[in-house]
Amino acid sequence: MKSRATERDQKHAVANLSNLYRIFTVPESPDSTLGQIDQEISQNLSGFLRDRIVATEQDLAVIEQDFSSPEIPEQPTFVSDYTDFLMDTLVAQSVHTASPGFVGHMASALPSFMLPLSRIMTALNQNLVKIETSKAFTPMERQVLGMLHALVFGNDNAYYQTWMHNRDSALGAFCSGGTLANITALWVARNNLFPARDGFRGIAREGLHRALRHYDCNDVAVLISERGHYSFGKAADLLGIGRDAIRAIPTDGRNRIDLGALQQTLRRLKRENSRIISLVGIAGTTETGNVDPLNSLADIAEEQGCHFHVDAAWGGPTLFSANHRHLLQGIERADSVTIDAHKQLYVPMGAGMVLFRNPASPSSIEHHAEYILRKGSKDLGSHTLEGSRPGTAMLVHSALNIIGRKGYELLIDQGIERAREFAGMIGTHPEFELVTEPELNLLTYRYVPARIQQALQRADTTRCSTINGHLDKLTKRIQKSQRAAGRSFVSRTRLSPQQFGDDTITVFRVVLANPLTTPKILGDMLEEQLQIAAGDERAQEILADLERQITD
Amino acid sequence: MKSRATERDQKHAVANLSNLYRIFTVPESPDSTLGQIDQEISQNLSGFLRDRIVATEQDLAVIEQDFSSPEIPEQPTFVSDYTDFLMDTLVAQSVHTASPGFVGHMASALPSFMLPLSRIMTALNQNLVKIETSKAFTPMERQVLGMLHALVFGNDNAYYQTWMHNRDSALGAFCSGGTLANITALWVARNNLFPARDGFRGIAREGLHRALRHYDCNDVAVLISERGHYSFGKAADLLGIGRDAIRAIPTDGRNRIDLGALQQTLRRLKRENSRIISLVGIAGTTETGNVDPLNSLADIAEEQGCHFHVDAAWGGPTLFSANHRHLLQGIERADSVTIDAHKQLYVPMGAGMVLFRNPASPSSIEHHAEYILRKGSKDLGSHTLEGSRPGTAMLVHSALNIIGRKGYELLIDQGIERAREFAGMIGTHPEFELVTEPELNLLTYRYVPARIQQALQRADTTRCSTINGHLDKLTKRIQKSQRAAGRSFVSRTRLSPQQFGDDTITVFRVVLANPLTTPKILGDMLEEQLQIAAGDERAQEILADLERQITD
Repeated sequence: MKSRATERDQKHAVANLSNLYRIFTVPESPDSTLGQIDQEISQNLSGFLRDRIVATEQDLAVIEQDFSSPEIPEQPTFVSDYTDFLMDTLVAQSVHTASPGFVGHMASALPSFMLPLSRIMTALNQNLVKIETSKAFTPMERQVLGMLHALVFGNDNAYYQTWMHNRDSALGAFCSGGTLANITALWVARNNLFPARDGFRGIAREGLHRALRHYDCNDVAVLISERGHYSFGKAADLLGIGRDAIRAIPTDGRNRIDLGALQQTLRRLKRENSRIISLVGIAGTTETGNVDPLNSLADIAEEQGCHFHVDAAWGGPTLFSANHRHLLQGIERADSVTIDAHKQLYVPMGAGMVLFRNPASPSSIEHHAEYILRKGSKDLGSHTLEGSRPGTAMLVHSALNIIGRKGYELLIDQGIERAREFAGMIGTHPEFELVTEPELNLLTYRYVPARIQQALQRADTTRCSTINGHLDKLTKRIQKSQRAAGRSFVSRTRLSPQQFGDDTITVFRVVLANPLTTPKILGDMLEEQLQIAAGDERAQEILADLERQITD
Repeated sequence: MKSRATERDQKHAVANLSNLYRIFTVPESPDSTLGQIDQEISQNLSGFLRDRIVATEQDLAVIEQDFSSPEIPEQPTFVSDYTDFLMDTLVAQSVHTASPGFVGHMASALPSFMLPLSRIMTALNQNLVKIETSKAFTPMERQVLGMLHALVFGNDNAYYQTWMHNRDSALGAFCSGGTLANITALWVARNNLFPARDGFRGIAREGLHRALRHYDCNDVAVLISERGHYSFGKAADLLGIGRDAIRAIPTDGRNRIDLGALQQTLRRLKRENSRIISLVGIAGTTETGNVDPLNSLADIAEEQGCHFHVDAAWGGPTLFSANHRHLLQGIERADSVTIDAHKQLYVPMGAGMVLFRNPASPSSIEHHAEYILRKGSKDLGSHTLEGSRPGTAMLVHSALNIIGRKGYELLIDQGIERAREFAGMIGTHPEFELVTEPELNLLTYRYVPARIQQALQRADTTRCSTINGHLDKLTKRIQKSQRAAGRSFVSRTRLSPQQFGDDTITVFRVVLANPLTTPKILGDMLEEQLQIAAGDERAQEILADLERQITD
C-alpha cells in the first residue's frame, strides 16, 4: 500500500511516543477523529452489504497488485488514509457472503446485532485460555457448552448443575471451527483407546508406535463414509495414524453410509488385527447435506466397543426443529459431537465446538503448565487444542438468547422448505437435472439440455461417460461465469451418485441457509445459468461437441 | 439468563418470520434501535476501559450463578435487554487486560483504531479457507505473511514477487495463535523427515509406526530447552510421537539452552537410533523472556541435518528494533518461525503465524477436497491446520501500516527500557529479590524480607529449601490477594534458577508491553505488595513461620 498521508497527517500518526500513547488510549468522545471514522465505516459497510456479491469482478492477479509489497512501511500511516485504502481495495473486492444470492457455500447472512455485540468482544480482548485473562467469560463459555450439550444429549438440570462448572472435567471444547473440533474428538478417542496401564504410560506420553506394540495390534482405523469432510484426512495425518487409516465406506443412493459395506470393513479390520479409533457418523454431509443412520451406527459402535463421533458441524442445529429433529435420532448416543457455530448458529466466522457425552473423556488430552492451567484450576485451556483464543463463545451465547429456540426452528424449517421448493423447480424444468435430493437444506444439480438427457437415457456406459465428461466441462464453465458476473453464486463439486454407475460427475452445489433467499432469487439464478449456456462462447463450443456426440 | 423482556418487547424480537428477516437486514440509519444500542455500547465500553482491572472482585462461584442454566431460551430476547444483561454480568466481571496495571500476562493494550477496523472484518464475515468466500482477503493475508517473512528472513523484493502469491507454495500459515503455529511447524517437520520414497508413501499417508519401520529407526525426538512453551508437549501428544519425545534440555544461568547438555542429548539419541524431528530455539521464553543462542543452534541443526524451528511467538517483533534485533541473530537461518500477532503486534486475540524459510516445505502437509482447495487453486486452506477461519490477517495488515516499523520500534525499545528500570527498582529495594534479569521485557522476582534474605545467605541447602517452601506460600498469597484487589496484576510461576541449586521456587512474573505502564504504576505495585505482606492475615502467619525458621 502506498501511503497517501501528507506531511501534516504524519504529525497525527504514530510518529513519536506521545502519539503512540494516544493510540492506546480510548477516545473519550464520539466526535473524535476515530469516532468519525467509526461512523463512516458503519455507513460505508451498510452500503456494501446491500449490494452485489462482488462489486466488480476483477481478476485475482489484478487484486494481487494492491498487495504485492513485502515491505512493512517505515513510517506510520494516518488511520483515515488507511481506512480509505481498505475501502477502495479490500472491501470493494471482498465477497458478499451474506447476499441472498450467495448460496454456494456454508456461509450465510449475519444477524445485524452481531456488529455491536462483536465490539464488546473485541474491546475487552479477553483470552479464554485462562481465568486470569477472561474471568466471567470462562463461566459463560462453559454455559454455552452446557446449553449445546443439553440440546444434543438432553440430560436433566441436576446433571448440568454437577458438571457444567466442574473443575476436573469438560462438557466440550470451544475452538475456531469444525476442523479443530473433529481433530480434538479423534485425539480424545485415540488417547482413550490406548490409556496408561501396567508397563505403559499411555499414548499421550509414549506415542503411537509404543502404544501399538504394547496393545499388540498392527494398525488403527477411523471409519467414515466417503462423504466425510476433508478434515478427517487432515486429522489422521496430524495424529500420526496416516491418511490411509481413514477407511472410506461407500454410500447408498442417498449419500448415507452403506451398513453392509461397513460390516465388511469391520471384519477385515479384525482379520488385520487393527483397532478402531472411532466410528464417525455424519449429520449433514458437506456436499449433499445427508444424515447417516445414527442409531444403527451407535448400535455398531456399542457392539465394537469403540468411540462413536458425530460430525454435526452443519446439521446439529436441526435439533432445534420439532419437525426435523427426528432425522438426527441417535446423535444422543455419540461419545463426541462437532457443531459449528459459524454455520447454522449464525455467529461470525471462527466458532466451533466439540461436545463430549462423558465429561471425563477429554481428560485423556489434559495438559498443564507452571504459570497457567495448573491442576485444579478452572482454566479452559487445559482441554483445548488451541492455546490463547478469543471470547467468541460470547457471540454464541448472544445468538442463542436473542434468536431463541423458536427463532432457530423457524430458520431451520424454512431452509429445508426452501430446498424442497428449489428441488421442485429443478425437477420440473426440462433443462436441469436434480442430482441429489435435499434431505436437509442442501442439494446438487446440473444443467443438461433436454435432448442430451434423452440421449443419456439411451446411451451405453461408455457413451454415457463421454457425454458426462463434456457435461462436466459445461457445469464448470457455467459455475465460473456465474461467479464472475457476481449476481449469484453456486459452488461446484464432484460426486459419484449411485444412479450414475461408476461415473464421477461435476455438479452445482447449493446451500440454503440464508432466510433472505427467496424462490424468486432461485428462479433468477436458474434463468441466469440458462443465459450463460446460451450466450457464453466457450459454453456454446462445449454444447456443440455434445451435439456431435449424440448425433454420431 | 432471565429475560426481562416484557410482552411488548417480545413483539419486537424474533418471534415470527418477518422479524426474523429483519434481524438479517442491515439497519439503514444510525438512529435505528440497533444504531442506538451500538452507540450505548461504545460509551459504556470506554467507561469500562478506563477503570480498574476488575470492577468488583467476585468469587467465581458467584459469577457462575449468572451462567448456570443449561436451557436455551424458548422465546427470543430483545437485543436491548440482552445487552443490559451483558453489561451487568459479563462486562462488569471481565478482566481489563488493557489496563496499565495489568502486567502479569502477555496481554496488552489494544490500539483504539482496532475497534472500528474490526467492524469491517466482522461485517464482511469472510472465510479465508478459500478464495470463493474471501476474494481480496486472500492476497492480503499472503501479503501479511510475506511482510513478516521479509522481516525475519530478509530476502529481496524479487524473491517475494516470485513467491508471495505463488499458487503451489506458502511462505507461512496464518492461524488462531502461537500454539497452532508451533503445532503446524512440527507437523511440517515430522512429515518432511519421513517423506515418500520407493516402497513408502510417506508418513502423511502411512502413519508414524510405518515410517519408523521403513526408515529403520527406533524413535523420534524434539529438542527444546526446559523453558519451552507448553504447546510443544501438546504438539508431541497430538502428533502421535508422545510427550516423552520432547527432550527438555537444561538451561544456563540466563534461562538459555545449555549447549553442552544439548550435545550430550544428541549423542544419546544417536546411540538410541532416534531421529530428530526438530531442534527448537526460543526467542522470548514465556516465563522469563530470554533468547536462546540462535546462531549456535542453527549451526548444530545444520550439522545434524535436522529441521530448526524458532518459537518467536513473543520475541519476534524485537526485529523491529535497530537497538535490540541483534538479540535474535540467527533467526534468519531457521526453517520455521512462530510469531504471535495478538502479542507484540498489538492485534486482538486470535492471530498467530508460522513462517517457512523454504516456501516448498509446507507441501508436506498439503491437502485437497473436491468442492474447495482443488489442486492449482490459491485457496489458503490447503496448507493450514484450521479449516474455515476469519480474516484476522486484515488486522495485522492494519497494525503494520498504521503503526509502521518505527512505531513498533518505539514500543519494543520502551518495553525493554521499562523492564530494566523495574529491575533496578527491585534490585535496590531491601525487601525484594530479583530472580531473573530482563533480557527482553520480562522479569521475575519475589518478596523476601531483608532478614530472611540474610538468613538464606547463611543457611545450608536443607534449611534453604525449607525457607523457600515458606516463601513460595507467601508469594502465592500475595499474588492472589493483589489479583483479588483488582488494582494491578502480576502472574506467578515456578522456576528452578541456577543460583537456587536444585530448588524450584515460586516467583512473580511481569511482562512489560503496555506503553501506558509508567514507572509510577510499577512503584505503586511494589508498595501494594508490601502492604499485603504487612496487612494480610494469612501472609502474617506465613511470615511468623518464617521468623521461627530463621531463629530456630
